[in-house]
Amino acid sequence: MNDPTQVEKPLVDPDVVAQIKSWKGYVQAKLGFRNCWYPTLNSEELEEGKPVPFQLAGEKLLLNRIDGKVYCMADTCLHRGVPLSEKVECYSKETITCWYHGWTYNFTDGRLCDILTDPNSKMIGQRALQTYPVDEAKGLVFVFLGEVAEGKEPPPVERDTAPGFLDDDRRVRIFRRVVNSDWRLGAENGFDTTHIFIHKNSRLIPGNQTMLPLGFAPPPGNKDKLWDRVETEAGQIGIYDRLAERGIPHFEGKVGGETVVRAIHGGDKRLAEEISLWMPGVLKVDPFPDPTMIHFEWYVPRDEKSHWYIHCATKIVPGPDGDESFGREYETIWKDLYAHGFNDDDIWAREATQAFYDDDSGWLNEQLFESDECLIAWRKLASETNHGIQTRRR
Amino acid sequence: MNDPTQVEKPLVDPDVVAQIKSWKGYVQAKLGFRNCWYPTLNSEELEEGKPVPFQLAGEKLLLNRIDGKVYCMADTCLHRGVPLSEKVECYSKETITCWYHGWTYNFTDGRLCDILTDPNSKMIGQRALQTYPVDEAKGLVFVFLGEVAEGKEPPPVERDTAPGFLDDDRRVRIFRRVVNSDWRLGAENGFDTTHIFIHKNSRLIPGNQTMLPLGFAPPPGNKDKLWDRVETEAGQIGIYDRLAERGIPHFEGKVGGETVVRAIHGGDKRLAEEISLWMPGVLKVDPFPDPTMIHFEWYVPRDEKSHWYIHCATKIVPGPDGDESFGREYETIWKDLYAHGFNDDDIWAREATQAFYDDDSGWLNEQLFESDECLIAWRKLASETNHGIQTRRR
Amino acid sequence: MNDPTQVEKPLVDPDVVAQIKSWKGYVQAKLGFRNCWYPTLNSEELEEGKPVPFQLAGEKLLLNRIDGKVYCMADTCLHRGVPLSEKVECYSKETITCWYHGWTYNFTDGRLCDILTDPNSKMIGQRALQTYPVDEAKGLVFVFLGEVAEGKEPPPVERDTAPGFLDDDRRVRIFRRVVNSDWRLGAENGFDTTHIFIHKNSRLIPGNQTMLPLGFAPPPGNKDKLWDRVETEAGQIGIYDRLAERGIPHFEGKVGGETVVRAIHGGDKRLAEEISLWMPGVLKVDPFPDPTMIHFEWYVPRDEKSHWYIHCATKIVPGPDGDESFGREYETIWKDLYAHGFNDDDIWAREATQAFYDDDSGWLNEQLFESDECLIAWRKLASETNHGIQTRRR
Repeated sequence: MNDPTQVEKPLVDPDVVAQIKSWKGYVQAKLGFRNCWYPTLNSEELEEGKPVPFQLAGEKLLLNRIDGKVYCMADTCLHRGVPLSEKVECYSKETITCWYHGWTYNFTDGRLCDILTDPNSKMIGQRALQTYPVDEAKGLVFVFLGEVAEGKEPPPVERDTAPGFLDDDRRVRIFRRVVNSDWRLGAENGFDTTHIFIHKNSRLIPGNQTMLPLGFAPPPGNKDKLWDRVETEAGQIGIYDRLAERGIPHFEGKVGGETVVRAIHGGDKRLAEEISLWMPGVLKVDPFPDPTMIHFEWYVPRDEKSHWYIHCATKIVPGPDGDESFGREYETIWKDLYAHGFNDDDIWAREATQAFYDDDSGWLNEQLFESDECLIAWRKLASETNHGIQTRRR
Repeated sequence: MNDPTQVEKPLVDPDVVAQIKSWKGYVQAKLGFRNCWYPTLNSEELEEGKPVPFQLAGEKLLLNRIDGKVYCMADTCLHRGVPLSEKVECYSKETITCWYHGWTYNFTDGRLCDILTDPNSKMIGQRALQTYPVDEAKGLVFVFLGEVAEGKEPPPVERDTAPGFLDDDRRVRIFRRVVNSDWRLGAENGFDTTHIFIHKNSRLIPGNQTMLPLGFAPPPGNKDKLWDRVETEAGQIGIYDRLAERGIPHFEGKVGGETVVRAIHGGDKRLAEEISLWMPGVLKVDPFPDPTMIHFEWYVPRDEKSHWYIHCATKIVPGPDGDESFGREYETIWKDLYAHGFNDDDIWAREATQAFYDDDSGWLNEQLFESDECLIAWRKLASETNHGIQTRRR
Repeated sequence: MNDPTQVEKPLVDPDVVAQIKSWKGYVQAKLGFRNCWYPTLNSEELEEGKPVPFQLAGEKLLLNRIDGKVYCMADTCLHRGVPLSEKVECYSKETITCWYHGWTYNFTDGRLCDILTDPNSKMIGQRALQTYPVDEAKGLVFVFLGEVAEGKEPPPVERDTAPGFLDDDRRVRIFRRVVNSDWRLGAENGFDTTHIFIHKNSRLIPGNQTMLPLGFAPPPGNKDKLWDRVETEAGQIGIYDRLAERGIPHFEGKVGGETVVRAIHGGDKRLAEEISLWMPGVLKVDPFPDPTMIHFEWYVPRDEKSHWYIHCATKIVPGPDGDESFGREYETIWKDLYAHGFNDDDIWAREATQAFYDDDSGWLNEQLFESDECLIAWRKLASETNHGIQTRRR
């Protein structure tokens, strides 16, 4: 029973609510988007015939590799709703059988193809679990979280990557971590140009002879747009942050007119000249963490309060040994100096932001400043160009 | 504050909702039923004058044995709502005194008979805690969860047991466990004939020279009823599952026409010829786990998400040493081979089903098949014949 | 989705609801009151320039000592809502800088005085974090949880203490603990005269040659008021419990006419002659635990389900060594015999009461008795004289 004498909660500023209407779809997308490709597990994690459960955008799913090709199917038996993965029983290459009553599903189309406890059931052939198209690229297993009409194909994976990611001879090292925050707080942490303030003491800066301002900000009285929205021929849609070009880098932080903190000048290597964020949630930092490399990172919704942070160190290295040689370089230098030494800070920052946005009231109560214009542009883009909003399924 | 831009949830098929109306009472009975007997602790757990707290159907209760007879009373002081059992203070045989302000209740009628801090209070004699009738049988303490009118008696315990349980010379070994699922998922797990698929590798099958099909299913084109509803002279109401007689046992499981799994044939002992489920939630499997024994199991609601699984191995053994001799047999053979070796699997199966039914949406979203006809019959019976539905009390 | 067939919950007695209307404000004050002083940390816990986060009445706050004076400011950056204390960065004595984007706030007025990543932002000087007035007295840091109009001062701390607490030469030993109950259950535990039943075996009674009845109760047929509401010249508002004078102490507890428990008579020292409870939640027991001492205890709301129990042992000890000498006495004798030996029992009692009041239905379902008249008087006083009710802020 509720308290019969409850105090009324204070109302929210209607102007703020009105502004949010222009990126309403983004606020709704707590679980991400539909009808787009998300990277999930690494290809090497999927062995032939060994289904692996995982969570994507609030859905419990299974991946399985059959004759080399990967399939994705719901992990919830249609009958009584139990997870098939609770006790995996695969009696043929293409199928998984529910441990409870023997309902058997084909990975290729999700079809209920047999029931071991009742081979005469009329349900057989008449029901199907949700399946999703799967593709693999650069060592990642991509899942297309959406429906594809009979006889149609999903769009190519490329559409939902950042430009250049799929380039020939681009070698990719993947480092996937669970971050306990909403995926949007991940994406905004990565794209937000002034968040680099948290990296001011990163060991990457002296370690790789580079420099990093404390932040970039628009010039006083700025009337220029600080970003560009682009769509590539491959259909990729994203925002370039132009603060590095059109804004002012600040290398000294002042309090009360006194300089109190200075950016470390570790050397003259120029990094991060172009920063862009692409649908459905992948950041590109070019070049980074070295003039020879490009950094990509994905924010993949797992549920309302956690995402996969898929960190991709990449470099073009031609030749048959390219992958192995980049792998050695990554393990020797970059894993510590960059994946940990730089990006570990982003993880606790995202998690520290979560409580304020837990119930989505943060979108109303935050107070943005000038350089956040790029984030607003991203929010609008995401609201306008998505192919559907993911919601909790039953 | 709510997200001002919340997406609407998908609606549920109205046909499914309509069907559920025919067993609405069962869906409501998340905490079980009222005005019926439930088994609780074992008689031997209740020593003279040592009150024991427990939880039944969402209520916090106390059992206490006084001059040999067991009484059941609410464990929540009327005054400020604290649990009496937080610090037991019994100053006379028939009473318990609240540790906080000395309110004292008589176990026989729940009456507030004294207040040690204010012997003149007008409350004395004018208030009473809820009490429930108690009976003991076969080593179980039964509580009648309901009101009994002045001068009336509750029905005999027998009404709420399965036939035969109280037979003379029937020896009973009780094994009680907490299972983290709704009691209904316990009852349906036990009664559902095709769930035996999970027992296909049970060590009981070879260990006791028996066999168990993978499942029983109705014959193709079946028009016969697969169950019988019965009411005994003692007022017991239950459903017999007739799939063993009228259905087809399947000893081979096929995927794509190939036999992929075969039931183990451990021997020719015939078991489980009659399976029946009785109000308010007790299963009888006759004979089981041996032609000389009958298995009974109760699903007793503790709260919305857990039940007591009260597993009773029974056998008729006449004579003064019958109980001791069956006790030795149970400990030597059956506890491992059957209580653990067979029924442990039921526990994790029930717990794996819980998430889907947590908020009761599972009743709308499940997809039942032919052999579940027996479950539907049970659900209707439970909706039609219960004597009241338990709800959270204040 | 909700259960489509939900059972209706039983209704509450409208007479009880009507009665609660007379102390509605108290039921609303789950997080305490606004516009009043609460004690928080100890002065000695605040070192110069070392901000400390804490929680008061549902708010996340910071305390910091600057040039000896303590300031209190919200611990939530205005920009993206992160806790400033997640990683403390103070670049000048008066300020704290948000670790995320360099927003910098002045502790004296909460003003956003600089943004290190964008010194030209128009936000600078235009926004401010909530600050609260702070004062220190008797080793406690008091925070005024409310707004003070421009050019005005908050009331003196004295208004929100119990009379005598601030007396010259009164030495105070503070022992602060977190108790997992609503602050109101703390206040009512302390003030309620019959709760002393829980202390009947306290080692303080024989240890300090005193006695304690099992309870005080109104005389039969009592028509006298059992309490006095007072307001002091300093504006302190409180209730004196007069049960010790106008009621009957009971030294024997009877069940069924038989004496079953007797109060321990440890000696003739007279204690606790006056018990009073003051806004916004501070108890005074005079004298206690010794004829030479006065006991004060505060119940400071942290959140809806926990409070700080600030236990203050006090004694008038004149002279320059007074504080040190009382400190030795407290550590040698009173910490064990009284702070633990007596008041530890109050802590588990409050926590045992919490579940019944968790959702505030306890206020409707409790059943009070004659001596609770003092509690009702307190509830009305708190409803009528508070300066505002605290609610969750955003």
